[in-house]
Amino acid sequence: MSPATAAQPAYIAFEGAEGCGKSTQAARLAKDIGALLTRETGGTAVGSRIRKILHDNTVDNLDPRAEALLTAADRAQHLSEVVIPALESGRPVVSDRSVYSALAYQGYGRCLDLDELRELNRWATRGMWPSTVVFLDAPEEVTATRMSGRALDRFEAAGDEFHERTIVGFREMAAAYPEAWITIQAVGSIDQVALQIREALINRGVL
Amino acid sequence: MSPATAAQPAYIAFEGAEGCGKSTQAARLAKDIGALLTRETGGTAVGSRIRKILHDNTVDNLDPRAEALLTAADRAQHLSEVVIPALESGRPVVSDRSVYSALAYQGYGRCLDLDELRELNRWATRGMWPSTVVFLDAPEEVTATRMSGRALDRFEAAGDEFHERTIVGFREMAAAYPEAWITIQAVGSIDQVALQIREALINRGVL
Repeated sequence: MSPATAAQPAYIAFEGAEGCGKSTQAARLAKDIGALLTRETGGTAVGSRIRKILHDNTVDNLDPRAEALLTAADRAQHLSEVVIPALESGRPVVSDRSVYSALAYQGYGRCLDLDELRELNRWATRGMWPSTVVFLDAPEEVTATRMSGRALDRFEAAGDEFHERTIVGFREMAAAYPEAWITIQAVGSIDQVALQIREALINRGVL
Repeated sequence: MSPATAAQPAYIAFEGAEGCGKSTQAARLAKDIGALLTRETGGTAVGSRIRKILHDNTVDNLDPRAEALLTAADRAQHLSEVVIPALESGRPVVSDRSVYSALAYQGYGRCLDLDELRELNRWATRGMWPSTVVFLDAPEEVTATRMSGRALDRFEAAGDEFHERTIVGFREMAAAYPEAWITIQAVGSIDQVALQIREALINRGVL
């Protein structure tokens, strides 16, 4: 569970609820700083196949441990094929979601033991966790409005209580790891939020 | 890693190299004793999709940990959806492969740490491991002949050294866990091998 060290380029993960604007902001930041833009799940060819299973809302009986193991398999492939080679070549990485989504979704959301999930994912990632996490904390009415036009997939359709638990999880992790996590109140225009993120990363010495 | 207890019906796994006759003998035994016949990987709908990824020989860069995590995800789903409900309803289970194939293939074969794989799979299975393992140890010339007519999938095409390591693994596990493992020299006709298996299981008090 060692964050990327100072000697390495930044490994920045965006985290937050569906509809919080993560993907847009991750892409924007990656372009601005010349980082490799990637994502979990689905950041590799194998990962795309795993993601299809995970998000398929016709799968109605997926065991929570199987779900956690599928996301960990995606992550192992993603780290070994994409993230670690980029960092080793000196290029920063911006990832739309990371291991912390596993803690939020399978831990807080599905109620699996957090220590066991950390252990599982430490093994899957070879201990390479993001050095910085940008948590976009959007008011529920904002994410609900953004999601209202989308066809819901398996996670999105998992119910309000599940999603409330994942948000609690993100907030608790942000409070527990203040050295790595930056919380951004994701309200305002895309430009306004992007500016907040840039300023916070500069203040933190990441950029 | 607790084997099914005496209070539970038998949970019998068949293990061995590709082409050793496992699937045929597992089906035969299950029919003879009225057990549920199942398999890993691919014993569930989700598992079938995972298995397709694992066996796809166009996937040429699968990370060993991702491979191990995919088999563990298949196993978690299989145990929770198929094996545990059957045992709890009083029905014996015969499984074509089990957690021990993960130790042989991803441990001995891919050279992942065996203790770490055991820990991972203890979590995936909730500690429910087969109570009895029938290891069909077939001479290499027999399995090679049986495999020669088949189109090779990703595991089958993984090379002689890989397969030699998995066989060493099966033999070492059979020697290490003599209370659970039964080694059958898988030579002779299907009927002859089936008879040997029945006799061994009766002698062991499993049937």
